[in-house]
Amino acid sequence: MGNLRRVPVGIVGASGYGGVQLVRLLMDHPEVELVYLGGESSAGKTFADLYPHLGNIVDLKIEAVDPEIIASRCEVVFLSLPNGLACQITPQLIEKGSKVLDLSADYRFSDLATYIIWYGTQRSDRSIAATAVYGLPELYRDRIAESQLIGCPGCYPTASLLALSPLLKQGLIVPETAIIDAKSGTSGGGRQGKINLLLAEADNSLGAYNVARHRHTPEIEQICSDLAGHEVTIQFTPHLIPMVRGILATVYATLRDPGLVRDDLITIYTAFYRNSPWVKICHSGTYPQTKWACGSNACYIGIEVDPRTGRVIVMSAIDNLIKGQAGQAIQCMNVMLGWDETLGLPKVGFYP
Amino acid sequence: MGNLRRVPVGIVGASGYGGVQLVRLLMDHPEVELVYLGGESSAGKTFADLYPHLGNIVDLKIEAVDPEIIASRCEVVFLSLPNGLACQITPQLIEKGSKVLDLSADYRFSDLATYIIWYGTQRSDRSIAATAVYGLPELYRDRIAESQLIGCPGCYPTASLLALSPLLKQGLIVPETAIIDAKSGTSGGGRQGKINLLLAEADNSLGAYNVARHRHTPEIEQICSDLAGHEVTIQFTPHLIPMVRGILATVYATLRDPGLVRDDLITIYTAFYRNSPWVKICHSGTYPQTKWACGSNACYIGIEVDPRTGRVIVMSAIDNLIKGQAGQAIQCMNVMLGWDETLGLPKVGFYP
Amino acid sequence: MGNLRRVPVGIVGASGYGGVQLVRLLMDHPEVELVYLGGESSAGKTFADLYPHLGNIVDLKIEAVDPEIIASRCEVVFLSLPNGLACQITPQLIEKGSKVLDLSADYRFSDLATYIIWYGTQRSDRSIAATAVYGLPELYRDRIAESQLIGCPGCYPTASLLALSPLLKQGLIVPETAIIDAKSGTSGGGRQGKINLLLAEADNSLGAYNVARHRHTPEIEQICSDLAGHEVTIQFTPHLIPMVRGILATVYATLRDPGLVRDDLITIYTAFYRNSPWVKICHSGTYPQTKWACGSNACYIGIEVDPRTGRVIVMSAIDNLIKGQAGQAIQCMNVMLGWDETLGLPKVGFYP
Amino acid sequence: MGNLRRVPVGIVGASGYGGVQLVRLLMDHPEVELVYLGGESSAGKTFADLYPHLGNIVDLKIEAVDPEIIASRCEVVFLSLPNGLACQITPQLIEKGSKVLDLSADYRFSDLATYIIWYGTQRSDRSIAATAVYGLPELYRDRIAESQLIGCPGCYPTASLLALSPLLKQGLIVPETAIIDAKSGTSGGGRQGKINLLLAEADNSLGAYNVARHRHTPEIEQICSDLAGHEVTIQFTPHLIPMVRGILATVYATLRDPGLVRDDLITIYTAFYRNSPWVKICHSGTYPQTKWACGSNACYIGIEVDPRTGRVIVMSAIDNLIKGQAGQAIQCMNVMLGWDETLGLPKVGFYP
Repeated sequence: MGNLRRVPVGIVGASGYGGVQLVRLLMDHPEVELVYLGGESSAGKTFADLYPHLGNIVDLKIEAVDPEIIASRCEVVFLSLPNGLACQITPQLIEKGSKVLDLSADYRFSDLATYIIWYGTQRSDRSIAATAVYGLPELYRDRIAESQLIGCPGCYPTASLLALSPLLKQGLIVPETAIIDAKSGTSGGGRQGKINLLLAEADNSLGAYNVARHRHTPEIEQICSDLAGHEVTIQFTPHLIPMVRGILATVYATLRDPGLVRDDLITIYTAFYRNSPWVKICHSGTYPQTKWACGSNACYIGIEVDPRTGRVIVMSAIDNLIKGQAGQAIQCMNVMLGWDETLGLPKVGFYP
Repeated sequence: MGNLRRVPVGIVGASGYGGVQLVRLLMDHPEVELVYLGGESSAGKTFADLYPHLGNIVDLKIEAVDPEIIASRCEVVFLSLPNGLACQITPQLIEKGSKVLDLSADYRFSDLATYIIWYGTQRSDRSIAATAVYGLPELYRDRIAESQLIGCPGCYPTASLLALSPLLKQGLIVPETAIIDAKSGTSGGGRQGKINLLLAEADNSLGAYNVARHRHTPEIEQICSDLAGHEVTIQFTPHLIPMVRGILATVYATLRDPGLVRDDLITIYTAFYRNSPWVKICHSGTYPQTKWACGSNACYIGIEVDPRTGRVIVMSAIDNLIKGQAGQAIQCMNVMLGWDETLGLPKVGFYP
Repeated sequence: MGNLRRVPVGIVGASGYGGVQLVRLLMDHPEVELVYLGGESSAGKTFADLYPHLGNIVDLKIEAVDPEIIASRCEVVFLSLPNGLACQITPQLIEKGSKVLDLSADYRFSDLATYIIWYGTQRSDRSIAATAVYGLPELYRDRIAESQLIGCPGCYPTASLLALSPLLKQGLIVPETAIIDAKSGTSGGGRQGKINLLLAEADNSLGAYNVARHRHTPEIEQICSDLAGHEVTIQFTPHLIPMVRGILATVYATLRDPGLVRDDLITIYTAFYRNSPWVKICHSGTYPQTKWACGSNACYIGIEVDPRTGRVIVMSAIDNLIKGQAGQAIQCMNVMLGWDETLGLPKVGFYP
Repeated sequence: MGNLRRVPVGIVGASGYGGVQLVRLLMDHPEVELVYLGGESSAGKTFADLYPHLGNIVDLKIEAVDPEIIASRCEVVFLSLPNGLACQITPQLIEKGSKVLDLSADYRFSDLATYIIWYGTQRSDRSIAATAVYGLPELYRDRIAESQLIGCPGCYPTASLLALSPLLKQGLIVPETAIIDAKSGTSGGGRQGKINLLLAEADNSLGAYNVARHRHTPEIEQICSDLAGHEVTIQFTPHLIPMVRGILATVYATLRDPGLVRDDLITIYTAFYRNSPWVKICHSGTYPQTKWACGSNACYIGIEVDPRTGRVIVMSAIDNLIKGQAGQAIQCMNVMLGWDETLGLPKVGFYP
């Protein structure tokens, strides 16, 4: 049984942290074979040139990016590129029949006008973009299963939306009171030599950035609006935390019904996510630590109600590089190919 | 000139992180002489037994705690004890004429009923407690100058209140919309062998704790109510951050006047704190990093307005062991003794 | 094929960091089923009581430790107990037919007199102890395959011996010149509330401990002596590093033949470890980072020769909880059961 | 009293970590006034543009580097520049009468041929260079007092030489057996955007670099040779540690007299450093943590003897940016100007 023929998959943009996680996870996936790694600046190098510890483990070379060749070799293509590049090669990949999972922002927006405002890039692929599905399986599992093009969510939106969705979908909160105070490890900033990401600067320090103007805001609002059934504006503040991996989103909102208690909400969340194996609702009185999720594709959600203020506080913890990036893309692939959603993904965190 | 006679000061409870900071800072203070260290469990030890790096630097022994003897030797006494102990020796110290700066929660509450509910301890020192002043010089400088007993603020309240005070005092926000999302290094948990404070557990992780029930909530609310002129309820959520020192409070509130812009608020804050040398208002568009404050007694405040949501977001960063604890107590002492508020306190952070 | 019947395995002492790694790795192992978790102090608890993130993932209860029952249910038993306890239950487990892998020091010494001197515990299981094999498969693969009782190596000895073995076995160095300067993350200190392991103490600090008297010294010397064919005395110094996981051993020794160059030694090491899939020899001029190994069972070895001093410097990096503990025990189990040595063990590090 | 007239001092190359430490420490120095900051790439900026937390604290502008102007305004000039630049402006500064303390490697070598081999730069300032004194006051206090030009030691050599000097000076060890295994925080790599210094790469990892070829090797050997009275070759290996600040040097050497015990050596070290207030010899059985030294100008030295191997192991801990860089330069200035060696320098570490 099994694996008589593995599905050939490729990665374009394999040199960053998203790329190396995709490589690691896809190598261990029982139903796929990693056959292609592509990149512009690193073309010609071996993967071990970029990551010496993978010498003799990953023996693929980074190849130049030619959509026609990629499509001829890969049934599934993961794009892990800076914003504004995926939209240049995706139309060809789609036309040639590959399934495409884009990890950038290019295919996350149903309304390209929003993308253009926040990302400052014009687009000529409107008809293709219109076919893309937002790759959060917990919300859009059925549409992902039928799609050929997935715009995988950002790391912050993943943690934020999993925390907010049951509340918005079921009309339990006043949407405009929602505030997301999000905290991320520095690997979210990518593998690039920026001063503020140096250990000497970022370690033993903490600060907010892009307050009131982070690009993940419209992405979160788009899905929140879809869930609420009307336009929703959200307060979102990201912070850089002195750790490598992990995101915690602390979400505040005012309950419409002040009589709801913590255990009511735990029941509601548990029901909402009953078919979502990667979402773990914490026991009453327990709040998640990001370390619980590090190394796994799980999202841990803790819930509290403050009867003094009438607010619900929801905390959600993920590994920003797995459920927030590479793992979620693979989860989407599993759904697209009709496989078990958990296939090939780590269930237990790396703890400690 | 100077130092013809230094003021004799003592510390009761010198073994913890607050204590070792008090020792370090008082040793460098030009107008005082550290003449007494007291503690119950460590009585008889030298300070170097507890902190080997201070051998030959601090040559005081830890003595047993006898209020009469302490008062006879110290004009000023710092109490750095677990909650519920300061109130047992303070009456005697006050009676004998010492000035007392208590770093615990015992003298922070003007209404002891609130203290008793949140701290679960009965009190028999009501008349003394009624004379205590809340030791946040930026708000209560004049009263501190005239008081003999100071209840020094908690670390979280210090960061939170410095961020909120101008808004509340001037009626700029709807008070019940205020949310404080606070983040602290693990030294705030003290020098005790708790599993959750181990490096192996706390490093590269992040989580909230005591959500909707942290004891600093009523302390913050008491001062906010004083500033607003009526009862105010506040949402406060603390988080443990994988770093040794530092607190960042990210404060959200809805502006009454949606026409206010960021620079209006920067002007207002700058004016509000014009006589407060330890508060540093960041330039427009700049947000504080906790590392800026580490090692100094400064509080850095950054301000943002989100015109999309009508909220102000204020970020304040302190060193939890200095402005949040030992440094602030010394700042209060400076005020009590009529000295310059900055005397003997580090102005520039330890950066990087 | 496969898994028609999985081998039932158990863990005694599952609550520590070694235990939780064993649980995580054994759950993903394709040929075994984890059927038993045992512990004294935590008997009656679920594993999720100890590690909340494993709720709904590991649903075994911790049971009391009864060797007869354990042996009746488990073909293979991992003992992850403090030193001096394994030797109390192992004789019964062996007698009843279980294969035993002990992660403590109890069965590492061929000469119990050495154990008794360094560990201060008397022993009444000499005949059983005499059958134990030292569980370093790279050196004792054949004997492990035929044994029923394995004394798994300490974390420091694993890194140290993999670095030193080719040099000693082939007589390339003057043995008494060997110095091992070893550095470990704090998880090696276990999940216990010790002051010196607190984040506030251990983070951003570094120090040596147990200099010239660490208990891993005689363990390293025993194997070095076996390799050299005569008694060897080794200098070993451990250091605590501000990180969770990982060990780096920097090994210095004087070459007998001053004409040997770096690439000669790389060739020799590569040949020595040609049948050892978990040992990765770095390219010429490349030195290992512990992060490369974190999360995998690999040991990365880098080699340098200093022609000015005539010394070889060998650096070896492992994950102290995997190749240094749980992973190596599973590697030994694979060898004992005739399986591929790499079965069920992670090949690629968790990087970054 | 005093300070009737403070000595005017300047810093060339103030933008890096060494520079910001010099600024912080010189601002607090009671006998000097910081009147000049110079830099090429940052000329025209305020210091607060580089370090926003110093707005309103340091109000100097970075000026272009004109030696004539600098010398006219500064009695003492600190040069904190990349290697090979100080030697271009020092001759003019010296000629105009300024005292110069160079923190780069340019004036550390009495034999410029060694400098040229290891640093690859030609030199045209031989006569000036010949007047430079190596700025380690514990060894060369008298010569520093009489010199106009100081080549301040590197960070690794400072920790290494303070550990080795008593042994070499008194002929207690076989010099060629000396091995220095050194560990440094990442701030030693400077404030530049290098991938390997990113938090995501360097945190929770550890590795050696420049093995057998680090440029601090000849610097250490030069002083060791001076102490021993003949040419000495030393083994030196640096490691990058996941922390911001601090160096630990673990030094191994074979004792000539195997009868020496630990307390003999503690006595010898204590006597050797009896006039060196910054060197702290640890009590018997105590080994230094780098955290002890962080924030102070102290060097903590711990000593152990291994009777089994006949070796002495000396551990020395410093703050790489203070005793290893800026603090030591100021200590040298104090000596040059006839002040107390401890003037203006922090005695107690920042702990925790």
